[in-house]
Amino acid sequence: MTRQYTRHAEGSVLVEFGDTKVLCTASVERGVPRFLRGSGSGWVTAEYGMLPRATNTRNDREASRGKQSGRTIEIQRLIGRSLRAAIDLKKLGENTITIDCDVIQADGGTRTAAISGACVALADAIEFLRKDKNGAVKGNPFKQLIAAVSVGICKGEPVLDLNYEEDSVAETDMNVVMTEAGGFIEVQGTAEAAPYTQDELNAMLDLARKGIAEIHQIQREALKNS
Amino acid sequence: MTRQYTRHAEGSVLVEFGDTKVLCTASVERGVPRFLRGSGSGWVTAEYGMLPRATNTRNDREASRGKQSGRTIEIQRLIGRSLRAAIDLKKLGENTITIDCDVIQADGGTRTAAISGACVALADAIEFLRKDKNGAVKGNPFKQLIAAVSVGICKGEPVLDLNYEEDSVAETDMNVVMTEAGGFIEVQGTAEAAPYTQDELNAMLDLARKGIAEIHQIQREALKNS
Amino acid sequence: MTRQYTRHAEGSVLVEFGDTKVLCTASVERGVPRFLRGSGSGWVTAEYGMLPRATNTRNDREASRGKQSGRTIEIQRLIGRSLRAAIDLKKLGENTITIDCDVIQADGGTRTAAISGACVALADAIEFLRKDKNGAVKGNPFKQLIAAVSVGICKGEPVLDLNYEEDSVAETDMNVVMTEAGGFIEVQGTAEAAPYTQDELNAMLDLARKGIAEIHQIQREALKNS
Amino acid sequence: MTRQYTRHAEGSVLVEFGDTKVLCTASVERGVPRFLRGSGSGWVTAEYGMLPRATNTRNDREASRGKQSGRTIEIQRLIGRSLRAAIDLKKLGENTITIDCDVIQADGGTRTAAISGACVALADAIEFLRKDKNGAVKGNPFKQLIAAVSVGICKGEPVLDLNYEEDSVAETDMNVVMTEAGGFIEVQGTAEAAPYTQDELNAMLDLARKGIAEIHQIQREALKNS
Amino acid sequence: MTRQYTRHAEGSVLVEFGDTKVLCTASVERGVPRFLRGSGSGWVTAEYGMLPRATNTRNDREASRGKQSGRTIEIQRLIGRSLRAAIDLKKLGENTITIDCDVIQADGGTRTAAISGACVALADAIEFLRKDKNGAVKGNPFKQLIAAVSVGICKGEPVLDLNYEEDSVAETDMNVVMTEAGGFIEVQGTAEAAPYTQDELNAMLDLARKGIAEIHQIQREALKNS
Amino acid sequence: MTRQYTRHAEGSVLVEFGDTKVLCTASVERGVPRFLRGSGSGWVTAEYGMLPRATNTRNDREASRGKQSGRTIEIQRLIGRSLRAAIDLKKLGENTITIDCDVIQADGGTRTAAISGACVALADAIEFLRKDKNGAVKGNPFKQLIAAVSVGICKGEPVLDLNYEEDSVAETDMNVVMTEAGGFIEVQGTAEAAPYTQDELNAMLDLARKGIAEIHQIQREALKNS
Repeated sequence: MTRQYTRHAEGSVLVEFGDTKVLCTASVERGVPRFLRGSGSGWVTAEYGMLPRATNTRNDREASRGKQSGRTIEIQRLIGRSLRAAIDLKKLGENTITIDCDVIQADGGTRTAAISGACVALADAIEFLRKDKNGAVKGNPFKQLIAAVSVGICKGEPVLDLNYEEDSVAETDMNVVMTEAGGFIEVQGTAEAAPYTQDELNAMLDLARKGIAEIHQIQREALKNS
Repeated sequence: MTRQYTRHAEGSVLVEFGDTKVLCTASVERGVPRFLRGSGSGWVTAEYGMLPRATNTRNDREASRGKQSGRTIEIQRLIGRSLRAAIDLKKLGENTITIDCDVIQADGGTRTAAISGACVALADAIEFLRKDKNGAVKGNPFKQLIAAVSVGICKGEPVLDLNYEEDSVAETDMNVVMTEAGGFIEVQGTAEAAPYTQDELNAMLDLARKGIAEIHQIQREALKNS
Repeated sequence: MTRQYTRHAEGSVLVEFGDTKVLCTASVERGVPRFLRGSGSGWVTAEYGMLPRATNTRNDREASRGKQSGRTIEIQRLIGRSLRAAIDLKKLGENTITIDCDVIQADGGTRTAAISGACVALADAIEFLRKDKNGAVKGNPFKQLIAAVSVGICKGEPVLDLNYEEDSVAETDMNVVMTEAGGFIEVQGTAEAAPYTQDELNAMLDLARKGIAEIHQIQREALKNS
Repeated sequence: MTRQYTRHAEGSVLVEFGDTKVLCTASVERGVPRFLRGSGSGWVTAEYGMLPRATNTRNDREASRGKQSGRTIEIQRLIGRSLRAAIDLKKLGENTITIDCDVIQADGGTRTAAISGACVALADAIEFLRKDKNGAVKGNPFKQLIAAVSVGICKGEPVLDLNYEEDSVAETDMNVVMTEAGGFIEVQGTAEAAPYTQDELNAMLDLARKGIAEIHQIQREALKNS
Repeated sequence: MTRQYTRHAEGSVLVEFGDTKVLCTASVERGVPRFLRGSGSGWVTAEYGMLPRATNTRNDREASRGKQSGRTIEIQRLIGRSLRAAIDLKKLGENTITIDCDVIQADGGTRTAAISGACVALADAIEFLRKDKNGAVKGNPFKQLIAAVSVGICKGEPVLDLNYEEDSVAETDMNVVMTEAGGFIEVQGTAEAAPYTQDELNAMLDLARKGIAEIHQIQREALKNS
Repeated sequence: MTRQYTRHAEGSVLVEFGDTKVLCTASVERGVPRFLRGSGSGWVTAEYGMLPRATNTRNDREASRGKQSGRTIEIQRLIGRSLRAAIDLKKLGENTITIDCDVIQADGGTRTAAISGACVALADAIEFLRKDKNGAVKGNPFKQLIAAVSVGICKGEPVLDLNYEEDSVAETDMNVVMTEAGGFIEVQGTAEAAPYTQDELNAMLDLARKGIAEIHQIQREALKNS
């Protein structure tokens, strides 16, 4: 994770996990969406995009097609939900933080890499806001680091962080988002091809827990160097 | 579950769970999307919609806004993935079955009601295709019934099938899709407000398992009366 | 006509004419569109939709195509104009009533069934508003019941309420909307294939008058049971 | 009516009725829409547009809003239906004629002026096709001239061709499309404000018949000068 | 150039250069876009469109495709920039003038004809505003006439105002916009096929200067007759 | 310029000019757009995008707005035209090369940086195609390096490569694209605020010529290290 990768954003992190590279920026804006106006509460939202040639074959640019794909929308909703769990929105005051996760190069696990990197960018943006006298922030809105991994079952074995090749033959694909304290924020396990058992679910969650602990370590180290 | 609720579709089921009413129709078309042409394999896909006044306050009609909401897209992708797990697409031949799930009235759990009802409509559509000499179906493409429930943690307690009021105060919301044999097809547990523990996860899954067993019973009974 | 078919809307009617089933809901909202703000006058508008498999072959879902068809737009404009004729907009105060007409199953005459049913849902919504102390309604905004039928010339003969099979071979198709007092609100007669004479026009209008009288009777009976 | 107003189109007529000016062009293309392919039959379709400042206040340009208004769509469907009644589509062969009606300046009655002018442009396009050896036309596809007027009831009196000022206060507005032989192609009478009686309907139709006879005369004269 | 070609717009000019005919209207509206509110400054913007059959073969109507083409957008940005150079926006007060350039018939050079004609329509709109007591205009916002021509290199020779046939074989195409005083507002020279030299550039600019002087003369004469 | 910055694309260059960072990828696809099918000729096209937080304040993501801005469209058309001048499309065979230019960080001159970097990515993609036995390439389609700079007049002085701060106060902004042999491909000089003279034009072109010569040197060096 490289912090301050770009210079304009209040938080900006380049995450590189294997060949996957995602740029996560956090942008602070005064004001909140209509449904929160006057509530004193802030908002955190996320957008996700993939550069057209981040993958092996070129995908149409969503901006020129005039439409985000269903996959994009599903992912950015997951990222947004996960990051809101890291923040006490009440303490944020009426500020909005928008997280942009743009995939420069993809090799599996882009959504979980995005969540893990975005959380660090979010921490930086919160620090920025806390130093701002007009920021309207009360106390520390940052509750906890959250991190994510994808796990799967590939040829009968639980595997951490599937790369692209494994991803396409995996029988099951599961995204897990957890807090530092070990609580689950999101568990999304999908098995189009072959159902999985409770034992397999537990094995995947164990593996995820270990992977996430390592990422939390990487996040803490990244945040140490200010 | 009322089968043959409308007369044109190859499969058509009205599901009523509490105050939630969802009309699920299955439509058979010859041919498959481009990425499957010539593969000999079929396809199952789903679309989801909510009538504008299915809920307590009117929502904009997605057709006139010109855009499906992120929530709609997320739900219809979940339904499609779940239903494909019920079918052996190879045996389906180059046919496409489109499942439409339209919410007439909403009171929580519309996506899981939709999955459970749609599976019965899908079974009827498969029967229709098998009777068709030109249907190109090999053997029985229907592998297994799948059903879904939503569970949650509300005021610290695991609860089955949250209604709308409980839904909005639930700390955790989890959708579970399972086969008759007890395998997991999809587990989606989200906790924006408060993370959940492995124990709570297990308690929710136990509850889900029981609820799904009952729905499988309802599905089998509905399918008996032909 | 089944009133209170769904539980959330201020007015909600299921119309069944032959195999045609249309759900009409009336939703009350405070405020009016921009062009009426400050005028003291209210507004009534309508939207129309057909579930994808309401007909014999599945139609694309307009929400996922991102566009309403020309036919849909033409129909919802007709419904809106017709219903505004039932109401004294001045007396309505600055409230908006949105009528949603969703076709569950189609067998000809969906637009006229929609108008006839929607007028009853509208009457219920007006009653709801009149009981609301903050409703800003002056007196009774409901002026008169309006109802609609389609008539046509099929094999040289005037016919009431063409079903789908007749509809496609009809030489002429006419939609007529009338008040209880026998005044015309809308006459729309189209003859793509063979022009019609003044005599045929009159024969169709006579038939329409009789059909509409029956529907007004059905509306009155439906409204009696409160 | 000025024929050959522009030089590229196969038919091109500028209609000026009062201050209303509409440019109608007819464009011939080989081939037909998908639903007619292989049928041997041709197709006639119409599109309608209004220049942004054709009216007293500027309207948004539909191309930049990305959407045609409901009014535009309703009008272009009316024009298309009316013009198809002038043509024997079977004799047209698999050709498509697209009529573009663009309003340069508006002062009421643009849709009926468009129909009357477009029919002359259509006649020219048919002549063009008949002279083309590869045109695949059988005999004369042009069946009859059709023309249109708008009539209304204004301060209790039937009035022909409402101008813009009258239009806005008219109690009833009716568009009538007729053949030279006096048959009705389309009757569209709308009374949002005050219902009209059968007598008023007849009075309006009488007036329309006279107005249309004059327009047919103008069309015949325009077509004489080749 | 025919001034007051239509009657509603504050400025309205039909430009005919060869077979190219463009209708330019200038519409005055109170208020400015958000980014200028409260600045005391006005705004001038332009939109461009081509009637579907302005050219030799019919183009899709942009309003029904739901999207302006890249070419359209590029042209209307050029027109807007050029016209803003004719005006002192500070003196305009918080008014917006929208220029619509609609091509009735195209034979090359539509964008430069549009700029030259639009400038005259703009001058009329400014006069309209200056006579309006509530217009909030300070002094004379009209700074200078601007005019435009296209030049090119065709078979090695610099040519003024390419017509359509020359346009398609031209090696280089250059649009030049100048003030009466001989200053450049915009120079856009494009050579997809063969690069051009500084000498060729100068030869084209010389030719452009002469052509533009003639157009300025035509503009002045058009403006004399009020 | 860093070649092979990402690993999937046939050509991939990161350009860094000052604080401006643009990722340019070139993607090869078999086949050409419809208007070239069967011509034996290839095609080169470009798309441009800016990450939402590439600039000082966050811009809406074009994919979620559903529309590319006019500025984006204008820029990607310029890039595409410029790059086609580097290639002999006839020799390319029926292949399409799509150039994606995505701005990671912006500080003025993004469009000219994009052109200069994209030309190197294009050269790599051409090499890739030439090595491909099935590539259908005849000889060497790469004709010449092209490069671009922006120049302007700032406080009366010609300036090369305006950074963002200068950009906003510049009186004139000119983009120049040239070949190695010194021919002009594109000259685009815009002066919204103050017209420029022929002398100023020449001064800017002189400056541009020098700047472009340096960039050609950087391109050649980047291409040496294979």
